[in-house]
Amino acid sequence: MRGLLIGRFQPFHAGHLGLVRAIRERRPDDVLLVGIGSAEEAYTPENPFTAGERFEMIDRALREARLSGVEIVPVADIRRHALWVRYLEGLLPPFREVYTNNPLTRLLFEQAGYPVESPALIERDRLEGAKIREALATNSPWRDRLPGSVGRYLDEIGAPARLATLRKGPAPADRPERP
Amino acid sequence: MRGLLIGRFQPFHAGHLGLVRAIRERRPDDVLLVGIGSAEEAYTPENPFTAGERFEMIDRALREARLSGVEIVPVADIRRHALWVRYLEGLLPPFREVYTNNPLTRLLFEQAGYPVESPALIERDRLEGAKIREALATNSPWRDRLPGSVGRYLDEIGAPARLATLRKGPAPADRPERP
Amino acid sequence: MRGLLIGRFQPFHAGHLGLVRAIRERRPDDVLLVGIGSAEEAYTPENPFTAGERFEMIDRALREARLSGVEIVPVADIRRHALWVRYLEGLLPPFREVYTNNPLTRLLFEQAGYPVESPALIERDRLEGAKIREALATNSPWRDRLPGSVGRYLDEIGAPARLATLRKGPAPADRPERP
Amino acid sequence: MRGLLIGRFQPFHAGHLGLVRAIRERRPDDVLLVGIGSAEEAYTPENPFTAGERFEMIDRALREARLSGVEIVPVADIRRHALWVRYLEGLLPPFREVYTNNPLTRLLFEQAGYPVESPALIERDRLEGAKIREALATNSPWRDRLPGSVGRYLDEIGAPARLATLRKGPAPADRPERP
Amino acid sequence: MRGLLIGRFQPFHAGHLGLVRAIRERRPDDVLLVGIGSAEEAYTPENPFTAGERFEMIDRALREARLSGVEIVPVADIRRHALWVRYLEGLLPPFREVYTNNPLTRLLFEQAGYPVESPALIERDRLEGAKIREALATNSPWRDRLPGSVGRYLDEIGAPARLATLRKGPAPADRPERP
Amino acid sequence: MRGLLIGRFQPFHAGHLGLVRAIRERRPDDVLLVGIGSAEEAYTPENPFTAGERFEMIDRALREARLSGVEIVPVADIRRHALWVRYLEGLLPPFREVYTNNPLTRLLFEQAGYPVESPALIERDRLEGAKIREALATNSPWRDRLPGSVGRYLDEIGAPARLATLRKGPAPADRPERP
Repeated sequence: MRGLLIGRFQPFHAGHLGLVRAIRERRPDDVLLVGIGSAEEAYTPENPFTAGERFEMIDRALREARLSGVEIVPVADIRRHALWVRYLEGLLPPFREVYTNNPLTRLLFEQAGYPVESPALIERDRLEGAKIREALATNSPWRDRLPGSVGRYLDEIGAPARLATLRKGPAPADRPERP
Repeated sequence: MRGLLIGRFQPFHAGHLGLVRAIRERRPDDVLLVGIGSAEEAYTPENPFTAGERFEMIDRALREARLSGVEIVPVADIRRHALWVRYLEGLLPPFREVYTNNPLTRLLFEQAGYPVESPALIERDRLEGAKIREALATNSPWRDRLPGSVGRYLDEIGAPARLATLRKGPAPADRPERP
Repeated sequence: MRGLLIGRFQPFHAGHLGLVRAIRERRPDDVLLVGIGSAEEAYTPENPFTAGERFEMIDRALREARLSGVEIVPVADIRRHALWVRYLEGLLPPFREVYTNNPLTRLLFEQAGYPVESPALIERDRLEGAKIREALATNSPWRDRLPGSVGRYLDEIGAPARLATLRKGPAPADRPERP
Repeated sequence: MRGLLIGRFQPFHAGHLGLVRAIRERRPDDVLLVGIGSAEEAYTPENPFTAGERFEMIDRALREARLSGVEIVPVADIRRHALWVRYLEGLLPPFREVYTNNPLTRLLFEQAGYPVESPALIERDRLEGAKIREALATNSPWRDRLPGSVGRYLDEIGAPARLATLRKGPAPADRPERP
Repeated sequence: MRGLLIGRFQPFHAGHLGLVRAIRERRPDDVLLVGIGSAEEAYTPENPFTAGERFEMIDRALREARLSGVEIVPVADIRRHALWVRYLEGLLPPFREVYTNNPLTRLLFEQAGYPVESPALIERDRLEGAKIREALATNSPWRDRLPGSVGRYLDEIGAPARLATLRKGPAPADRPERP
Repeated sequence: MRGLLIGRFQPFHAGHLGLVRAIRERRPDDVLLVGIGSAEEAYTPENPFTAGERFEMIDRALREARLSGVEIVPVADIRRHALWVRYLEGLLPPFREVYTNNPLTRLLFEQAGYPVESPALIERDRLEGAKIREALATNSPWRDRLPGSVGRYLDEIGAPARLATLRKGPAPADRPERP
């Protein structure tokens, strides 16, 4: 059977990798579905990377860590909370358990009858997406918060320059149509 | 003929009920259309209840208050203000008068040639949606601001726990995809 | 409690009215929700009338027939069958029974655990939407297939001329952008 | 003031050019808005060219014919006929007259109070979009049905090969996702 | 590096499995991305299975055939051909080669600079999605056209009854709103 | 060939006009495409004017300034940055150069291989959309920041009253459904 871990992974950092490893160790016979949320978002300060780039980050990090039994799936937002669990049930292969620390995700899946677990997050002050994006944009140390392969990939795609550009970007609306 | 009152009713409170009663008394021969706006929204801090739940609240409150001559219609957002009045004209049966205290709603309907009335709101400091949602989320007194039947319904569906969860929810974006 | 009858009602004809009467007689203590499907469609050969016009037809027919205990609700298409029942549950107040003769509607609601009844349709060769639309467009007899109040309303809004125009309309795509 | 001519222009052919010339001669002091309908469609058998390609065709043909006083505007479909006129009023600068041979376009604009004219179409058996697309796809004579500059542009962008490919394309659904 | 094979897989049949095996043998060092197209469609005659069900079919068939090095990704339609390749580039991890027998898919990817291969399809008269769906709906032999694990899965989810229901379904529009 | 200048022009002010004049003088043989971004937005504090009103402002200002060689095109948002350049390429006729001061617009077009120029903006403290909207809403001096013809047009359409109404409007969500 499968478990489901869903996140935005902007970017996929060491805390995420630790979470995947912990779930895989606890349920070695299950497959873990990793859903890349807000897949349609990219090039915004909060969602700088495309779903494809995030897929590549996760893929590289799992190979580097020699973790198998994981299936990665981009998941576009449906923007209707009341339909969200049903939407995921139609998009993904069957799963029997959900891992999340988000209170609303927990509420919606529990209402639908799923067991939900909230794994402990590690080093939350360092390993948090918003803080790592800020570090990337401002040339502060970020490399040690990511799996090595993810750090190298972010260099390849010019992530620091992209994040710095997005940070300057048009506030409060972040659409490129707005010079 | 019909009049139109449109709101989000998150939740339907005593001020709303007073408004409906006043309009019904003033125009006993008309039917009052009550449009439930942002019908597609639910499980967010600002829009915690589904359209169906809001429909049920209004239905119960009207029965309890023995008010008839009302038709309840969920109305999804079209998100284009310039088309909004035309959109409502296509979705709803004909109406000849609009009741609103919202300046933009007034502007758009007046531009389209409708008479618009702004009924006096009662006890606005107590009877305001945002304040009642805050009270529900924080276990402050809320029951006396709602029709009795609505209060009992909110208990039935576990509204206080839901509101408390949503309040903890992921800021600034309130989508469940974001652990 | 409530039952749910969902249709497009293009237009609301005598067969529909018979159906509503039969359901009301059988369940006099329930309210009947009448959902106007494909509410966003209008001015096409298959969906000539707006949701508001269909709402008005049903309202007039029910008053004429002195039928009460009915709530009319326009329902826009969501165009994702796998989410459809869940979507209706969020949009409508609670219902416990579904009336339909459509095999897919039956399948989807039964999968979701609802009891579904298929009421006998009367005079299906005369009382069928497509045939009545064809009669309206071609000046063939149509008035005796509709409740009297609906026939008068169709005259008021110039339905025969509209249907004749739509029939000439741009095949195969029926969008007005295509001279 | 302005007049409005709206079409899909797949492709912009000699009949269209004749129409524009006739309207310009009749109303030399007005500007003619040429709306490119279904602007979001491309690479289908019925809509082979992008809005940008159609814009370029019209632009070149007007320069070649030394016609001025024309403004070209791509118009995406809104797919809701009841809102269509209102949508165009919001998207386009003010216009006071509409030119169309499409019965539904005429009906919708007349309902909204616009004067509508139906200019005579010339050589409809040769100068009709579907027939020209068919000729392009099957290597039948098509060049003499188009303004010279449009014919040369279609060669530049490889239109005959594109049309031939689309014609083979996946029936009945024409989406590329379907090998 | 990766190759991309995209299809609807309604259902995933023996021809699809043969294709995957041939590609894997030819490029053993590459990963094969299998994109499930029209992922948002389900419960229609042409698209009876949800993306999740199709994911499960492919997963089971690959395990049964002991094929590895495959990543399965549901891909919702974007319905704009001119943007399709760019959309896939944003959704999927990088790929360098495309496998397709669809002429339009070939055209769009070649225009974008990708090498495209058209693998030979086997037993096209037996192993074609539309024919297998027809067989499922009409109780004709279908089991020998599918991998064994897929056949058993179709039994589990009651596919023959579903297909038979959909076949009766409302023509020409296949929406459940239309009794 | 063409150059592209894209903005929201809420409203089109003297700084915009200076920009157009500078580009036209520098490239007298090119046509300048002026794209009206966020074309679908109107009647919000940040986007008070419809695309059609903004088109009219630009048209009047260019005639008044006797500037020719400009094509005005409304451009609806696609809300997916990663597809934005490709979307514009499909919607607009070919352009070879982009003018923008927005960092993200620059980044996206440069990634796609376009030369991008950032013209100097004049008097940015006075000639900035947000400040002019604020002045319109609060009855502060605004007329000298706009081309004369645009100022007169804003009077014609009652812009100051509209802006004042929108400013009072429902915070934080600016939808009219929310009394």
